[in-house]
Amino acid sequence: MTRRLALVGLGPGDPELLTAQAARVLNEVDYFLVADKTAQHPGTADLIAMREAICDRHVTGEWRIVHVPDPERDRADPADYGAAVRDWHEARAVAFEQALQEHPGDAAILVWGDPALYDSAIRLADRIVERGNVDVAVEVVPGLSSVQLLAARHGLVLNTIGGPITITTGRRLLDDARTGDNLVVMLDGSLTCRRLSDPSAWRIWWGANLGSPDEQLVAGQLDEVADEISTRREEARAARGWVMDTYLLRRASHIVVP
Amino acid sequence: MTRRLALVGLGPGDPELLTAQAARVLNEVDYFLVADKTAQHPGTADLIAMREAICDRHVTGEWRIVHVPDPERDRADPADYGAAVRDWHEARAVAFEQALQEHPGDAAILVWGDPALYDSAIRLADRIVERGNVDVAVEVVPGLSSVQLLAARHGLVLNTIGGPITITTGRRLLDDARTGDNLVVMLDGSLTCRRLSDPSAWRIWWGANLGSPDEQLVAGQLDEVADEISTRREEARAARGWVMDTYLLRRASHIVVP
Repeated sequence: MTRRLALVGLGPGDPELLTAQAARVLNEVDYFLVADKTAQHPGTADLIAMREAICDRHVTGEWRIVHVPDPERDRADPADYGAAVRDWHEARAVAFEQALQEHPGDAAILVWGDPALYDSAIRLADRIVERGNVDVAVEVVPGLSSVQLLAARHGLVLNTIGGPITITTGRRLLDDARTGDNLVVMLDGSLTCRRLSDPSAWRIWWGANLGSPDEQLVAGQLDEVADEISTRREEARAARGWVMDTYLLRRASHIVVP
Repeated sequence: MTRRLALVGLGPGDPELLTAQAARVLNEVDYFLVADKTAQHPGTADLIAMREAICDRHVTGEWRIVHVPDPERDRADPADYGAAVRDWHEARAVAFEQALQEHPGDAAILVWGDPALYDSAIRLADRIVERGNVDVAVEVVPGLSSVQLLAARHGLVLNTIGGPITITTGRRLLDDARTGDNLVVMLDGSLTCRRLSDPSAWRIWWGANLGSPDEQLVAGQLDEVADEISTRREEARAARGWVMDTYLLRRASHIVVP
């Protein structure tokens, strides 16, 4: 019999940012699957508490989380980044497949943000289906991304009038900033924007731990606020044991003064 | 006394895609402001019914919509597109300001999708504040974008592994497709992707009227599915009196076969 495997976007952390659809699906399935990264990142126990707060608010009655230990991943810069990521995806698919075999019923994988944006759950579920060892029907439940909360907090439109947006990663930023002048940067572990050659030409809207009780926000001309962002970023990490940040960079020449 | 002016993202249309935060804010304010485009676009009466269904589901008790007639906008290709849009924004700010003066209390502007993405409500509210004739505190409530629903329906991750995403408009697509190989296209009234010079090199994931009861979905190699998309697009327009579509284009060379 085919079981449901729902990939549910929880939004950026605040329980209020869940959609009604996500809440319904959480109530319909039998248990939740979560990649457990506490072995690699002990500070993420705090993230587990945030997830539990979301379940407590939106699920009527009992709920159950099955933790799937996350395989080790080579975070150094390997020769073939894509291949390293794919190897890690395969090990993860095997681990989730095993959890699905051990626990009967319908399951939901809980995803921070939106499964469509720099998240591995969709590829994970596709791979589980391809392997063919468990009979699941995959459904995707979209969630708000931290980028959208960043924009809301800063009262920011992500596009200039009629202009494009490049969403990229810290790893690619220095390349993509050559052609793009309006960039959203995600997954940047080291504030790569500090290495742009012309920081006075850029304006930045930055946020960390968005949707958590102690989120951080800074906006201004990049060369003037970069130090403050670094400081606030380290404070956020010290306070919670982890930091996740995202930012918009826009060339100052593209900011229209009405 | 400062009044609230909330810009509330309703998501792409399905009442289930509202966040708990958006529902709360809709219940807290005294009335809703909506740009009324029925004079220019008679078919949009249908959109009003969708909006009412959202209010009926999420607002306890009575609710009230104040319709603000939308100023005329020059849709021909003017010499200065940005200036034409700014003139229209100013006329709209005056109209909304007048509505706020006539109707006391806290207000919410209802926005399809996410106010942060190709929407004018944030700039409208900024301009109302700058003009200084009404005393309002602006807050932004993010909503799911139709792009996220497109991705969910197709089970699609918007980025390739570690790669960037360009979000652009129909107007800019032919330019942006020269440098980008993974593009989300919005506000394209005429399926500009059909004018790409190398349609067999692209894969497309397309959706129309997403979140409405009769949404349309097509995916495939661009040259093979372009005719079907055109047909389905016209069918959607005939059925509801309007069509709003969005799509992801990805160069086939960037699709990894696992």
